[in-house]
Amino acid sequence: MNYAQESLIQHKKLGGKIEIALKDDLSTKDKLSIYYTPGVAAVSSHLAKHPEETKNYTWTNNNVAVISDGSAVLGLGNIGPEGALPVMEGKAMLFKNFASIDAIPIVLNVHSTEEIISTVKAIAPSFGGINLEDIAAPQCFEIEERLIKELNIPVMHDDQHGTAIVVLAGLINASKITNKPIKDMKIVVVGSGAAGVAIIKLLNAYADPDIIAIDSKGIIQHERGDLNHTKIELLKMTNRDQVKGLLDDAIVGTDVFIGVSQPGILTDSMIRTMNKDPIIFAMANPTPEIMPDLAHKAGAKIVATGRSDFPNQINNALAFPGIFRGALDNNINKITTDHKIKAAEAIASLVKNPTPEEIIPSINNKKLVPTVSKLIF
Amino acid sequence: MNYAQESLIQHKKLGGKIEIALKDDLSTKDKLSIYYTPGVAAVSSHLAKHPEETKNYTWTNNNVAVISDGSAVLGLGNIGPEGALPVMEGKAMLFKNFASIDAIPIVLNVHSTEEIISTVKAIAPSFGGINLEDIAAPQCFEIEERLIKELNIPVMHDDQHGTAIVVLAGLINASKITNKPIKDMKIVVVGSGAAGVAIIKLLNAYADPDIIAIDSKGIIQHERGDLNHTKIELLKMTNRDQVKGLLDDAIVGTDVFIGVSQPGILTDSMIRTMNKDPIIFAMANPTPEIMPDLAHKAGAKIVATGRSDFPNQINNALAFPGIFRGALDNNINKITTDHKIKAAEAIASLVKNPTPEEIIPSINNKKLVPTVSKLIF
Repeated sequence: MNYAQESLIQHKKLGGKIEIALKDDLSTKDKLSIYYTPGVAAVSSHLAKHPEETKNYTWTNNNVAVISDGSAVLGLGNIGPEGALPVMEGKAMLFKNFASIDAIPIVLNVHSTEEIISTVKAIAPSFGGINLEDIAAPQCFEIEERLIKELNIPVMHDDQHGTAIVVLAGLINASKITNKPIKDMKIVVVGSGAAGVAIIKLLNAYADPDIIAIDSKGIIQHERGDLNHTKIELLKMTNRDQVKGLLDDAIVGTDVFIGVSQPGILTDSMIRTMNKDPIIFAMANPTPEIMPDLAHKAGAKIVATGRSDFPNQINNALAFPGIFRGALDNNINKITTDHKIKAAEAIASLVKNPTPEEIIPSINNKKLVPTVSKLIF
Repeated sequence: MNYAQESLIQHKKLGGKIEIALKDDLSTKDKLSIYYTPGVAAVSSHLAKHPEETKNYTWTNNNVAVISDGSAVLGLGNIGPEGALPVMEGKAMLFKNFASIDAIPIVLNVHSTEEIISTVKAIAPSFGGINLEDIAAPQCFEIEERLIKELNIPVMHDDQHGTAIVVLAGLINASKITNKPIKDMKIVVVGSGAAGVAIIKLLNAYADPDIIAIDSKGIIQHERGDLNHTKIELLKMTNRDQVKGLLDDAIVGTDVFIGVSQPGILTDSMIRTMNKDPIIFAMANPTPEIMPDLAHKAGAKIVATGRSDFPNQINNALAFPGIFRGALDNNINKITTDHKIKAAEAIASLVKNPTPEEIIPSINNKKLVPTVSKLIF
């Protein structure tokens, strides 16, 4: 199937993928008077006095805003709010389908850090949680950090943490197969955008393995004069041996390659310089850093990608539905690193006997959301 | 039924009155690939190049934000965003029930004119229209005016125009009963908040009748030193004879009393000073400016209120569903005075033979939304 063509046809035919539904009908005059005026005034008065009870009387107990400024949409880059909207509507479908959460797409035509923060804060009382989506790095880091601090509802930038959580889940199971603890692994992470930075931080918090981070200019190391604030922070948790150079310098003698970067940058000869049983997470979309067959030929033991047509798909949708379900159900107002680690462990636990072809559970595993939402909170 | 008590019980039981529904299921891998990645990228790329086609591919062809800062909620005053939310959810129910429109409640915790405007503009690409709701006067006037000018989607502050349109509709039919054209009427309007100002402007645009406006300090006239910008503007279309004083001075020799003010301020003796066949619109909620039975005893020919338990309920829900339905269906990006007048005429036309007990059609009249949405655009 030509998904691009079919997608244009179906979107035009449906005219949008989501709609509002009523939890009760308005068939009688009494119902109108209960759900709207004059009855609703009693609820409004009550919440004006007790705003902390808003979730008990409104849909904020089960809703989440999916917010993007359209600055880093899929692999398409900065395409603006209109271009982002179909993706956010799609994400709302996933939220409802997998976690029964009511997600509302909000696309912004402001793009500065301060404007995005103030807009999200201004509309925040409408929602039970905020899923930030497709906002470009490095801006996304400050926006998420500030909103977590300044709001008392859960805020998560899924491009960062959704990916990081599923990578950790996969690595936990890969570690069982290769019999090497994550703390003893040497890991190369290529790509220091939203996902790359979050992966490094989460692996570091989980087991403090030996990580080398690489961006488009090469290995991130102290002598580079071009590092922004985020990358300088990364130095605290990466590059123990102060290695310099490019990917082919960094990868020698490592156990794991994690790519959230560009198609084709990992070669078979590079894999041959890695330690025994190389683990390859090649997540560039739609074309991975190396194709799985080529990686296996070069000796890779386990290969994961971002694609659904190969084994081991690293898919954010394994994480965010259960995380927000758990946060909403348990009135959690901050999603912490500890929550993220427990989410990764919960996801990993659903693969009873990990094999090189199955380190990640299926997105259709019915236990996924209940397990993640219960285990992490 | 004790609506207040029952409303608290039902809201808590339902935990919110609206939810998100999917227009198609995600039961197959193909559907996931069409509605989300990778297929959706084709739609996003297309809309990035042709943002003007967004309505054809997203739910903005049928959605409206219902936005309030909670500064003038029902008769409760400035109760904040949390207190406002149940009302906005109720409004979303009405939008769906009467006009099949997907309305999303957005409550704001910013309150300055500039912050409200910039927040609404920032989120505007997410919606096909903006229904402003329960924002205090005089701020609401500038906010609406600026948003109409600066956005290219329909924006309407319903507290102003919804009420004004239904008042005009009622007055058109009342005029048929008393055989006096609106242009020849003398009218007193008490209350110069959102609704009062909009009623005066719409009546003026429709037929330029002789209107006297009254606020909490008395008749609005040139010698008052306490008039804000909005009230100074009102002077251009009211008080032809430069009358001074209070309601009992203004009402002598008038044909119509229109109250959007305080309970009980109109007395039977005042009605006795009006012209033959007095028309009384006493819309203070929940207790009108005068009770209908008392008004009729004093000689009122026609009495309308805001309440559903008396004849002739002036209910915004007669206007806004059809107006937004028409605006969305016809890609109207400004709702003009001409649209509002045609909406009032359309609503009035649904009462075939107006009587003193029926100058307004029922909210359950199935022809209402189709007639308003087709006639006005």
